[in-house]
Amino acid sequence: MDRKISVFDSTLRDGAQAEGISFSAEDKLKIVRALDAIGVEFIEAGNPFSNPKDLEFFQKVKDLRLENARLVAFGSTRRKDILPQDDDNLKSILLAGTEHIAIFGKCWDFHVTDIINTTLEENLRMISDTIGYLTERGKEVFFDAEHFFDGYKNNREYAMKALKAASDAGARSLVLCDTNGGCLPHEIAEMTRAVVEAFDVPVGIHCHNDSGCAVANTLAAVAEGASEIQGTFIGFGERCGNANLSTVIANLQQKMGYSAIPEESMERLTETARFIGETANISFDENMPYVGRNAFSHKGGMHIDAAMKNSRSFEHIEPSVIGNSRRFLMSEVSGRSTVIKNIQKIAPNISKDSEETRMIIKRLKELEHMGYQFEGAESSFELLIRKQLGKYKPFFDLVDFKIIGERGQEAGEHSAYAMVKINVEGTTKMSAAEGDGPVNALDKALRECLENFYPVLKKTSLTDYKVRVLDSRDATASKVRVLISTTDGVNEWTTIGVSKDIIGASLTALVDAIEIKLLRELELKIRNYM
Amino acid sequence: MDRKISVFDSTLRDGAQAEGISFSAEDKLKIVRALDAIGVEFIEAGNPFSNPKDLEFFQKVKDLRLENARLVAFGSTRRKDILPQDDDNLKSILLAGTEHIAIFGKCWDFHVTDIINTTLEENLRMISDTIGYLTERGKEVFFDAEHFFDGYKNNREYAMKALKAASDAGARSLVLCDTNGGCLPHEIAEMTRAVVEAFDVPVGIHCHNDSGCAVANTLAAVAEGASEIQGTFIGFGERCGNANLSTVIANLQQKMGYSAIPEESMERLTETARFIGETANISFDENMPYVGRNAFSHKGGMHIDAAMKNSRSFEHIEPSVIGNSRRFLMSEVSGRSTVIKNIQKIAPNISKDSEETRMIIKRLKELEHMGYQFEGAESSFELLIRKQLGKYKPFFDLVDFKIIGERGQEAGEHSAYAMVKINVEGTTKMSAAEGDGPVNALDKALRECLENFYPVLKKTSLTDYKVRVLDSRDATASKVRVLISTTDGVNEWTTIGVSKDIIGASLTALVDAIEIKLLRELELKIRNYM
Repeated sequence: MDRKISVFDSTLRDGAQAEGISFSAEDKLKIVRALDAIGVEFIEAGNPFSNPKDLEFFQKVKDLRLENARLVAFGSTRRKDILPQDDDNLKSILLAGTEHIAIFGKCWDFHVTDIINTTLEENLRMISDTIGYLTERGKEVFFDAEHFFDGYKNNREYAMKALKAASDAGARSLVLCDTNGGCLPHEIAEMTRAVVEAFDVPVGIHCHNDSGCAVANTLAAVAEGASEIQGTFIGFGERCGNANLSTVIANLQQKMGYSAIPEESMERLTETARFIGETANISFDENMPYVGRNAFSHKGGMHIDAAMKNSRSFEHIEPSVIGNSRRFLMSEVSGRSTVIKNIQKIAPNISKDSEETRMIIKRLKELEHMGYQFEGAESSFELLIRKQLGKYKPFFDLVDFKIIGERGQEAGEHSAYAMVKINVEGTTKMSAAEGDGPVNALDKALRECLENFYPVLKKTSLTDYKVRVLDSRDATASKVRVLISTTDGVNEWTTIGVSKDIIGASLTALVDAIEIKLLRELELKIRNYM
Repeated sequence: MDRKISVFDSTLRDGAQAEGISFSAEDKLKIVRALDAIGVEFIEAGNPFSNPKDLEFFQKVKDLRLENARLVAFGSTRRKDILPQDDDNLKSILLAGTEHIAIFGKCWDFHVTDIINTTLEENLRMISDTIGYLTERGKEVFFDAEHFFDGYKNNREYAMKALKAASDAGARSLVLCDTNGGCLPHEIAEMTRAVVEAFDVPVGIHCHNDSGCAVANTLAAVAEGASEIQGTFIGFGERCGNANLSTVIANLQQKMGYSAIPEESMERLTETARFIGETANISFDENMPYVGRNAFSHKGGMHIDAAMKNSRSFEHIEPSVIGNSRRFLMSEVSGRSTVIKNIQKIAPNISKDSEETRMIIKRLKELEHMGYQFEGAESSFELLIRKQLGKYKPFFDLVDFKIIGERGQEAGEHSAYAMVKINVEGTTKMSAAEGDGPVNALDKALRECLENFYPVLKKTSLTDYKVRVLDSRDATASKVRVLISTTDGVNEWTTIGVSKDIIGASLTALVDAIEIKLLRELELKIRNYM
């Protein structure tokens, strides 16, 4: 039995159908390169007929040198009652210029008669004409058997005839699609088995997640002999999304003995998933299996203690295998062991039961109650510990600030000005700056003023700024939590602020971010001196 | 074969282990009532030993009259080498005062010897002593067979011995736990079958989602004879979460012929899921099967056309069955049919191919390019259409505004002041207000000023305020998208604003929200007059 599985990614085509997703040409190029780099075999990059931007993209990427992947253009069978050569959709597909083409065709009799309003016979001709036309022109054609499973349930004979039409016309593989995503694993298994037994061409599987089983459905089809898996890399797609390829690949490769991507690519799975999430500009689902930030996070005290003894006790695989890592979280249900680990980084001689630990945990709880969460803001937590231990001397004092916001000169534009007054060891200085909105102005004024005292801050810049409304039902008086990530070109650190006022919350996080940089500089100086 | 499945919800216990989740006592009461109302049979509400707040909660809810549900307290077997009556954990559980108790015990030999460091024999005694002690006191005990599947893979005989110890001691059911969440459906099926065949007591299933298969694993166990399903109602839990009960219940009931909750409760599934999400204060996963806002949303043009003809063509079930609804989205890949549906609400005589439609679509695309998304902000989209059609006369002109922000008097407090100047049909008025942050101050000043002209606005208030940073990598100069929901006590509507400046974005959404209310009032007057 061949254990090699072909991976066919449709992030750029079916994924683009997801609510809130819209890719620029530059985004698409980035994603193509990332998928190619980890050894994905086929990348479906768009529908050149229904979206002119996709056609443009195909023409643009022709010269892209890919190591592993082949690009695939997607489209439908010819329209009813015309010749393939007269079909605008097929013309666009050929213009895309890819060697590989995915053609979807109807396999559910109800769709043929009630949606596209033609005869069952004409639909079969649409499938065979289209595939024949393209294969004669040297194309490799995947047949996406749309609604195959629903069709098979409704009219088994007709669904199989549609596959036969595609196979006879030279399709390179028959991809069984659970287009509405409603099937369950035992159904997918049974129907895939019937197809694998009846046809000699390779069989593929394309699942949607409307029953919450897209991953399991894909695995069930593979177990029955499907050798090509379609999905989107991190699962987004229309309605409830597509099969999540990062999960499917990890399951196949780590648990079922199949080979989907080169073994040496496995450790880039997490990084690739996150890169695609960032490029698509979605908020990444941190509970995502294998690649989410929480996938190997331990919160309960007992779990933390056990995972520290032996990670196998509460982890299904070793996270480093797929490039992820283990985290121990702080919270009211976790024991003291996580907090103490962080404390001991700063003061190695403090024990789990000491008065200092108790004080820090008390303060931590108060802040958590106010809406703080240090789980993603380890740098602010470090400052909190230092403050509680008396191991912290502020590098500056923000004496005062004022912000003025007003309607911008031009329609739709808004202006803001900020003034800050800073005191460093008895010397006071003021600065002012303007910006896009009050937070941006304040950020600029603060940095400009502090650079007079600490030129090293010129090297730092913000890389990320996130706002979360904590209880949005209090509307504009809600508490907001701001997370800021800062870099100095080498390291990156994240700080947090919470307030009813977005300016207050941002300021807390900005000040912490600057303090951390100055603290690191001081530590470096001390180390060099010793 | 009995088709009745017992639902056991652990949102308040295992769900509370999820990163970012922390329930107040009031939250817990709300969730208990919501679960009870739709007919969930068992609600695991906490661990009275490890969390004193949970013990308090159990004592508080004793008098709560529930229609259907029984509360369950959770804890571990007695510690090694002591008597049950000397175990503080068991004392706390008894103090909780519930009739039902879930006791977890080790089934994986490696955990016994390497994590809790005792002998295999002593662990069996810990199980039987604990369950015996509790059943003698009249308790109904669920045995949560921790790591059962990993244990069975490693030492089948020992895992089965652990179950036997529980069963012999009087456990009401044996709940097989995939604690690390690493199992796949075929494994769960095989091992569950072995247990169902070997024991006469009911068998339960408790899955985690680390392989992305928690739902499918639960269904596989039920198909093999498990009759009790554990999970959390919307799937949150440690690491990658627990089996999502809303998905499992819908699959069992709508597709597999089982009865999990009363049939008349099914249409409250969506509302209950969303209520729990809101109470837990998490951002709801809108792609969630069955209950997500996107679960029955259609974006692609072809899909929209087909779903309008017959919803069955692209929906696995009828959304109203589980209390959800169908949505047609606007976007570059959707055809004109959605847009035209919205246009025709305002101007019924405008056709799909008219110049006005083309203009509106062009403007829509420009705004989408700027970061607008009208998918959740239908009211702003209505104003956009009216503006393009010339069917819109603003009710007021915001002539100017100024905002002043400064450090608050007390540490950690921040103040903001706003002034606005409004013109209504030649009359100019100014107002000022202070608030928590500049947006809150501006909101108050704007309303106060406008109420002079339009007293009806006194009835409106904001119910929701959401901020999303669009490209967070531009840090504090990133574009933000603000969504505001407003109510007048009867209707609720949502408006949107996008800007580099949070104040500008908020202002756009606030102004739209007020315009919509005034428009509705005018429409009402016209209707009453006619």
